[in-house]
Amino acid sequence: MSVGSPAGRGLLVGRFQPFHRGHLAVVRAIRSAWPSETLLLAIGSSQSSYTSDNPFTASERFEMIERSLGEAGISGWLALPLPDIGRHALWVAHAEESLPRFARVHTNNPLTRALFERAGYPVESPTLVEREHWEGRRIRAELRRGGDWRPLVPPAVAAYLESIDAPGRVRRLPEGAGAPPGT
Amino acid sequence: MSVGSPAGRGLLVGRFQPFHRGHLAVVRAIRSAWPSETLLLAIGSSQSSYTSDNPFTASERFEMIERSLGEAGISGWLALPLPDIGRHALWVAHAEESLPRFARVHTNNPLTRALFERAGYPVESPTLVEREHWEGRRIRAELRRGGDWRPLVPPAVAAYLESIDAPGRVRRLPEGAGAPPGT
Amino acid sequence: MSVGSPAGRGLLVGRFQPFHRGHLAVVRAIRSAWPSETLLLAIGSSQSSYTSDNPFTASERFEMIERSLGEAGISGWLALPLPDIGRHALWVAHAEESLPRFARVHTNNPLTRALFERAGYPVESPTLVEREHWEGRRIRAELRRGGDWRPLVPPAVAAYLESIDAPGRVRRLPEGAGAPPGT
Amino acid sequence: MSVGSPAGRGLLVGRFQPFHRGHLAVVRAIRSAWPSETLLLAIGSSQSSYTSDNPFTASERFEMIERSLGEAGISGWLALPLPDIGRHALWVAHAEESLPRFARVHTNNPLTRALFERAGYPVESPTLVEREHWEGRRIRAELRRGGDWRPLVPPAVAAYLESIDAPGRVRRLPEGAGAPPGT
Amino acid sequence: MSVGSPAGRGLLVGRFQPFHRGHLAVVRAIRSAWPSETLLLAIGSSQSSYTSDNPFTASERFEMIERSLGEAGISGWLALPLPDIGRHALWVAHAEESLPRFARVHTNNPLTRALFERAGYPVESPTLVEREHWEGRRIRAELRRGGDWRPLVPPAVAAYLESIDAPGRVRRLPEGAGAPPGT
Amino acid sequence: MSVGSPAGRGLLVGRFQPFHRGHLAVVRAIRSAWPSETLLLAIGSSQSSYTSDNPFTASERFEMIERSLGEAGISGWLALPLPDIGRHALWVAHAEESLPRFARVHTNNPLTRALFERAGYPVESPTLVEREHWEGRRIRAELRRGGDWRPLVPPAVAAYLESIDAPGRVRRLPEGAGAPPGT
Repeated sequence: MSVGSPAGRGLLVGRFQPFHRGHLAVVRAIRSAWPSETLLLAIGSSQSSYTSDNPFTASERFEMIERSLGEAGISGWLALPLPDIGRHALWVAHAEESLPRFARVHTNNPLTRALFERAGYPVESPTLVEREHWEGRRIRAELRRGGDWRPLVPPAVAAYLESIDAPGRVRRLPEGAGAPPGT
Repeated sequence: MSVGSPAGRGLLVGRFQPFHRGHLAVVRAIRSAWPSETLLLAIGSSQSSYTSDNPFTASERFEMIERSLGEAGISGWLALPLPDIGRHALWVAHAEESLPRFARVHTNNPLTRALFERAGYPVESPTLVEREHWEGRRIRAELRRGGDWRPLVPPAVAAYLESIDAPGRVRRLPEGAGAPPGT
Repeated sequence: MSVGSPAGRGLLVGRFQPFHRGHLAVVRAIRSAWPSETLLLAIGSSQSSYTSDNPFTASERFEMIERSLGEAGISGWLALPLPDIGRHALWVAHAEESLPRFARVHTNNPLTRALFERAGYPVESPTLVEREHWEGRRIRAELRRGGDWRPLVPPAVAAYLESIDAPGRVRRLPEGAGAPPGT
Repeated sequence: MSVGSPAGRGLLVGRFQPFHRGHLAVVRAIRSAWPSETLLLAIGSSQSSYTSDNPFTASERFEMIERSLGEAGISGWLALPLPDIGRHALWVAHAEESLPRFARVHTNNPLTRALFERAGYPVESPTLVEREHWEGRRIRAELRRGGDWRPLVPPAVAAYLESIDAPGRVRRLPEGAGAPPGT
Repeated sequence: MSVGSPAGRGLLVGRFQPFHRGHLAVVRAIRSAWPSETLLLAIGSSQSSYTSDNPFTASERFEMIERSLGEAGISGWLALPLPDIGRHALWVAHAEESLPRFARVHTNNPLTRALFERAGYPVESPTLVEREHWEGRRIRAELRRGGDWRPLVPPAVAAYLESIDAPGRVRRLPEGAGAPPGT
Repeated sequence: MSVGSPAGRGLLVGRFQPFHRGHLAVVRAIRSAWPSETLLLAIGSSQSSYTSDNPFTASERFEMIERSLGEAGISGWLALPLPDIGRHALWVAHAEESLPRFARVHTNNPLTRALFERAGYPVESPTLVEREHWEGRRIRAELRRGGDWRPLVPPAVAAYLESIDAPGRVRRLPEGAGAPPGT
């Protein structure tokens, strides 16, 4: 795994809950626009799992990324966990400490953009394709209600989610902001 | 206090905010179905108090459990605090580290069930009696609006909640997910 | 900076997101009613920033307080950061450990009152003037929608918020309970 | 498990790494001097395990207490986990929140005494018998070097420690202040 | 309390355990060399107390600073708590978020210097006078052994430490890296 | 970056402070003994830096690994950060949640071995070559005293450490267990 020099690395942060076709399209677009760049895929909120907003562990999200980018024949990337720090003003310093160095950030999230720009990074906006279809929240809702979520994720992710009974898991999670286990 | 061997212990996790008639019925049913088992009552989210969802401290919840199970003449149980860990994938390991060993789990909470089954525990579903009446959320709402909460809790809990002016406390707590103190 | 003896100090806790005319009126009223008291202004939730409820850092909030109290010619106060502790039953002990000693608390927040009274402090209720106009939540909403927030804060705060492009920042923050950065 | 009223409860905090004859003698002495008191045994630093100073989990320490007090025929006690909080000035408030209420503290630890006295609790000093023999540090050293640790703990603890291969565990733990796992 | 503009503020971080003559000399020297600067005195490790290295709470340390600088007739300073963050690479960002803005740092601590220089701050080295006499570690050792610590601190601090029985407290604290309370 | 299936992945945990010839030899030996395995290199204590035991950030350690394995022509590996969790009994669950799945562990650390064996993993012992020469502690001591550390690390690491003035940094760090910044 050669990931090139820091000056040739870009960063894309996502929660990838799950990794879906929108994510895949964004990765493909970035790889195509910056072919010599190594793309760091930071798995945000990596410490969260088994909540309605974050049903899958970082380990499972890694598996989804690995399988669907392999299936799509996309190389030149590297996935890494990035836990929350809970203090947004320190979040960029936290990412800098935890991840390989990077020279450019790709994001459409306004807060992520604001924080990285404040720290002096160039920030690019990847083109989003049919965002309304491919959105994590919508896919989690489909998983919950037993709907038709399969077309919304890459085939390798669909197979993986079946293998871990993702619909069953999501259905059992309480809705809302992560109530802890208990009766 | 002899609590028997690990193989003869069961676990019931609850927040007990407050301990109400529904909890009492569940404990009675479990004690009756597994008479030789020692029942561990884990006081979940034990670190939370003075919020609208968790108005009472672990210490106060212990008092409610002790008094109402004493009043009901139920023995063979043990109450213990179990703070949140904030990372659900580690929650079972956290409970195993913090509590006496147990061989069986009693729960109707789907997330709790999912996490313990994933770790290989047998999980039982205690029968719920008139759940609509005896629910923590409803009782806290009654406490807040000065309604008729007394019949919903065991007599010993009603007396205890009066003694600490629980209605006054709950009324003063901001609604929602635990805004910190401040103006 | 002489802040007097502990017996002559009062405490006012606020999040000051931002410091507005309502806060200024409260400080003026307290200083006028207890002229020999030194007023500690604890900047609550000091660790939070770049969220829709807490857009500004403690450092920025300090700047707002300093400038508007200077502008208003009010002395005899001292601003200090007070991070959340997440366990309300320990919050007063946390404030006592972190701040200069104080003998009196000024608050209209029922939870803050309850916690300090439980610990034995005398608690005063400062008079609120036109609360409906001067409320942090309303001002943040005006900042977000590009409305007319300037008259709601002291002139020095308005100038400061312009200088850091507060409207641009607030507009980019996701609404709700502080979703972490990420795509 | 009836533990009596708050006014009739005493607290003994220990790390119990492991529970040894010195602990047993102290518990026996307290039960004999305050026969009508229920004794709360708080398992301190309950979150620590697999370090040279804290080799055993709270769950394992519970097992040792349960078995040796059962073996010795001592009743009227209750064991509970008490994790560290890392801020000593808040430690008593933390214990009060987490444990059933208690009216008296038994300790020979000067810091524990200082903190509880500062909070207004009566503090008793249990008589220590042959402290030089029965000390956790010495027993852990014997476990590490394969020495003669068995006579230093109650028979039930000796059997339990054998059953979990405690000597093998302690021998493999790095000495010093809890270096994290890793190469 | 007017603390001037950010460009006219300097920062001095110390643990002040206790505030001694060496600290006083440093503050006097800085105030004299930068008379128009407001000096921020950050009370480092503010969350620690009741350990042998950090016997006093932030609140108590504030009292010592206030009284001895008042006694010495030194103005133009401001004391603020600064808790540890445990991740040194984020420490400067943490200080920037928590404290009023500052333009210059005064320190003789090589790590503090390294971290602030890495972040682009000008760092000054205050002259130390007779460091061997006035050192926190030495004064704490004198407090512990009942030695002659009084001449090493300003008179106001000596009186304050007497008033809280500091020698008694320090004597009861276990030596070493902060063992938690317990038997 | 294809990292193969979970069944074909091995894990090596190290702090890599810095990545030295001993680490390189171990990686080479593992890659040679399990050529079809993808080797996960977990950067342990990833949250620590700027302390005498952990001078380098995770980001810097990543750079060392990347450069020296690239220089050595070794492929089939993947480096990932793994922060401490502070509770050893939960550490394996924490690693499982945070990292891609793995089927085998390579370690010579007895505690790491004990924890992974307890969780059911097969654990291999990589052959150590001339351990006395290539040890992190020794290399950090050489960096501190301006000794001859260059031959102890791969050429790419030597060049990298020069480029960030590692000797200057290490020299300025206080010895011992990570005293926080401050005067």
